[in-house]
Amino acid sequence: MGKGRVEAFSDGVIAVIITIMVLEMKPPHGTELSALVPIWPVFVSYVLSFIYVGIYWVNHHHLLHAAHKINGWVMLANMHLLFWLSLFPFMTGWMGENHFATIPVALYGVVLFMAAVAYTILVRVLISLHGNESTLATAIGGDFKGYLSLALYLAGIAVSFVNNYAGFAFYCLVAAIWLIPDRRIERQLKAK
Amino acid sequence: MGKGRVEAFSDGVIAVIITIMVLEMKPPHGTELSALVPIWPVFVSYVLSFIYVGIYWVNHHHLLHAAHKINGWVMLANMHLLFWLSLFPFMTGWMGENHFATIPVALYGVVLFMAAVAYTILVRVLISLHGNESTLATAIGGDFKGYLSLALYLAGIAVSFVNNYAGFAFYCLVAAIWLIPDRRIERQLKAK
Amino acid sequence: MGKGRVEAFSDGVIAVIITIMVLEMKPPHGTELSALVPIWPVFVSYVLSFIYVGIYWVNHHHLLHAAHKINGWVMLANMHLLFWLSLFPFMTGWMGENHFATIPVALYGVVLFMAAVAYTILVRVLISLHGNESTLATAIGGDFKGYLSLALYLAGIAVSFVNNYAGFAFYCLVAAIWLIPDRRIERQLKAK
Amino acid sequence: MGKGRVEAFSDGVIAVIITIMVLEMKPPHGTELSALVPIWPVFVSYVLSFIYVGIYWVNHHHLLHAAHKINGWVMLANMHLLFWLSLFPFMTGWMGENHFATIPVALYGVVLFMAAVAYTILVRVLISLHGNESTLATAIGGDFKGYLSLALYLAGIAVSFVNNYAGFAFYCLVAAIWLIPDRRIERQLKAK
Repeated sequence: MGKGRVEAFSDGVIAVIITIMVLEMKPPHGTELSALVPIWPVFVSYVLSFIYVGIYWVNHHHLLHAAHKINGWVMLANMHLLFWLSLFPFMTGWMGENHFATIPVALYGVVLFMAAVAYTILVRVLISLHGNESTLATAIGGDFKGYLSLALYLAGIAVSFVNNYAGFAFYCLVAAIWLIPDRRIERQLKAK
Repeated sequence: MGKGRVEAFSDGVIAVIITIMVLEMKPPHGTELSALVPIWPVFVSYVLSFIYVGIYWVNHHHLLHAAHKINGWVMLANMHLLFWLSLFPFMTGWMGENHFATIPVALYGVVLFMAAVAYTILVRVLISLHGNESTLATAIGGDFKGYLSLALYLAGIAVSFVNNYAGFAFYCLVAAIWLIPDRRIERQLKAK
Repeated sequence: MGKGRVEAFSDGVIAVIITIMVLEMKPPHGTELSALVPIWPVFVSYVLSFIYVGIYWVNHHHLLHAAHKINGWVMLANMHLLFWLSLFPFMTGWMGENHFATIPVALYGVVLFMAAVAYTILVRVLISLHGNESTLATAIGGDFKGYLSLALYLAGIAVSFVNNYAGFAFYCLVAAIWLIPDRRIERQLKAK
Repeated sequence: MGKGRVEAFSDGVIAVIITIMVLEMKPPHGTELSALVPIWPVFVSYVLSFIYVGIYWVNHHHLLHAAHKINGWVMLANMHLLFWLSLFPFMTGWMGENHFATIPVALYGVVLFMAAVAYTILVRVLISLHGNESTLATAIGGDFKGYLSLALYLAGIAVSFVNNYAGFAFYCLVAAIWLIPDRRIERQLKAK
C-alpha cells in the first residue's frame, strides 16, 4: 500500500541526482582537445558517481520489488538514503575539480560509506517489517556483499591519506563488485 | 479519477526541489577540511530544508492516499503548495550563504509558514470535497499538529529578530515534531 | 496504449521546467530586505511563469485524460509543446533580470504564443485521431478560450512596444482567464 | 516484471536531461534583439539536442512497449544508454558556446555515435532475451535505419574536420530521418 509512490518518488530523486551531476562538468572555454584536459578528473569522477547512483537505483528497484508493504519508518529510512545520495553531485564536483586531492577523495568515501550505511538500515527496516522468514529476508541473506563494501569504503578512506589515487581505486573496486547484475533476489523470487 | 497524475506530478516537482537545493552548495576551491567551513551554514540549511521537503512529501503522500477524488480546486490548491515549496532552494541558499543573518532567517520562516498555510488549504479543500464524515476528515481530525506548527513558525519569525539562531531553532523544533512518522491517517484507515 | 508513458514523460519534463525556473532567481549577496529589491522583477516573472506552466500542466492533464489513444503524431505534437515550454526558464530569467524591458517582454509573449499554438496543434492532432464525434472533440468544442488567448498574446506583444508593463499586463490577463479551473472537459465527461 | 520502473526511471532521467540542457543557454545581459545574437549557436545546438533526446525517448518508449520482460543486463544496457544521453547537455553547451568549432562538433558527433551504439546494444540485449522469433525481434528487423545512422554519424565526424558546418549538417540529417514517427514496431504489433 503506497509502495508505488515511494518507488516513484525515489525514481524521481535518483533520476535528478544522476543527471544534475553532469552540471558539475562545465563546458571549457577553449575549442581544442587540450581544453578538455583540465576537466578530465571531473569526467572520471562523474563516470564513477554515475555508476554508483545507477547501482543504487538497480538495487533499490530489486529491494522494493521484493517488499510487500511499507510504513513510516521505511519512508524515513528511504529519505535518509536519498539524503546521502543527494550529496554525490557536490562531492563529485569537489573531488573532480581538485584532481583527486586527499581530503576530497577521503570525504567522497565518507559519503559513499554513509549511503551504504543508509541502504543497510533501509534493508534492516524492511526485513523487520516483513519478518525473518519472508522472501525479502531470505533473498538478502547474510548480505555479505553489503558488509564487504562497508569494509572496503573504510579501507579506501584510510588508504586515501597514504595515496589519494589508491583510495579512489578502492571505490572503483566496490563499484566493480556491484556492477555485475545482482541475481540474489531475482533467483530467490524465481525459486518460490 | 486523475488522482494518480496529481500524485505523479507532485512527486516530480518535489523530487526536483529536494535535489536542486544541493546545487546551492557549491564545491569550494580549497582542498583542506577548512575549505568546507564557509559552506557549513549552507550545509546545515540544506539538511533542514531536505528534512522539511521530505516531511511534506510524506504527509502529501498520506493525504492523497486517503483522498478518493480530486477536482479543479484541489489541483489549484496543490499547485499553490508546490509554489511555496519551490522557493525553498532560493531561501535555503540565501539563509545559508549569509550565515543565518536575521532577515534571511525571518524570511525563511515566512516561506515555511506560507507552505504550511498552503498545505492547510489543500487539506481543507480536500475535506470539503469528501465531506466532514469522510475517512479523510476524521483522519485529519482537529489537525492540532498543523495549527501548532503555524504558531511555532510565527513565533520563530518574531524570535529571529531578537536572536537569529533562536529563530532557526524554532524551525528545527517544528521539523522534529513532524519527523516522527505520522500515524494518524494510517491508524484511521486501519480501523476501518 | 502507451498513453501512460506520454503522461509520465510530460509530467517529468513539466515538473523539471517549473522547478528549475527558480534557479534563475539567484540568492542576493546582501542580508537586508533591500537586497531583495533588484530580484523583485525576477520574482514577479517567476510567479507568472509558474502559473502558466501550472495551467499548461492542468490542461494537459485534462486533455490526455479525455484521450483514449495516441500515435506518433501525437507524440511529435507533444514534444513540440514541451519544447516551447522548455524555453520558459530562459525567457523568465531574461525578462526578470532586465526589469521588463521591451524586447524581453515582447519575446516572452512570442514564447507564450508559440506554446499556445503548440497546444492547439496537439488538441487538433488528438481530435483528428479520435474523430469529430468523440467525447474529446465535443469537450473541446469551439475552443473559444484557446483562440482568445492567441489573440491576447498577439495584442500583448504589439502593446509591449508601446508600453512594456501594459504588454506584461496582457499576459497576466490570459493567465487569469485560465486560472479558474476549466470544467469543460470534466462536465462533458460527467454528462456521458 | 519490473519493466514499469525501468520505464519510469528512464522517463525521469530523459526528462531531466532534455530540460537542464536549456540551462546551458544563459540569459544575455543586453535587452536588444542583438543581445541574442551571441547565444544563437547555443539555441541551434539546443534545438538539435532537444530533437535528438526527444527521438530517443520516443524510440525507447516503443522499444520497451514491445518488450515483455527485463533482466539485469537490460538494466545495465539501459544505464549505459542513459549515460551517453546525460552527456548531451555538456556537449550542447560546449558546441554552442564555441560557435560550432571543429573539435566540439566532432566530439558532439562522437557522443551521438556512442548513444546510438548504446541504443543498439540495448536492442540486441532485449532481442537475445526475447528470442529471434519474438514480436520485438521481427519488429526491429534488420534495423537498417539504426545502422545507417551509425554510418552517418561517423561520416559527420570525419566531415567536420573538413568543414565544421557540414559535419553539423550530417547530424541534422540523421535527426530528420528519425523525426518521421517510426511505424515499424507499431505496424508489427498491429499485424499480430
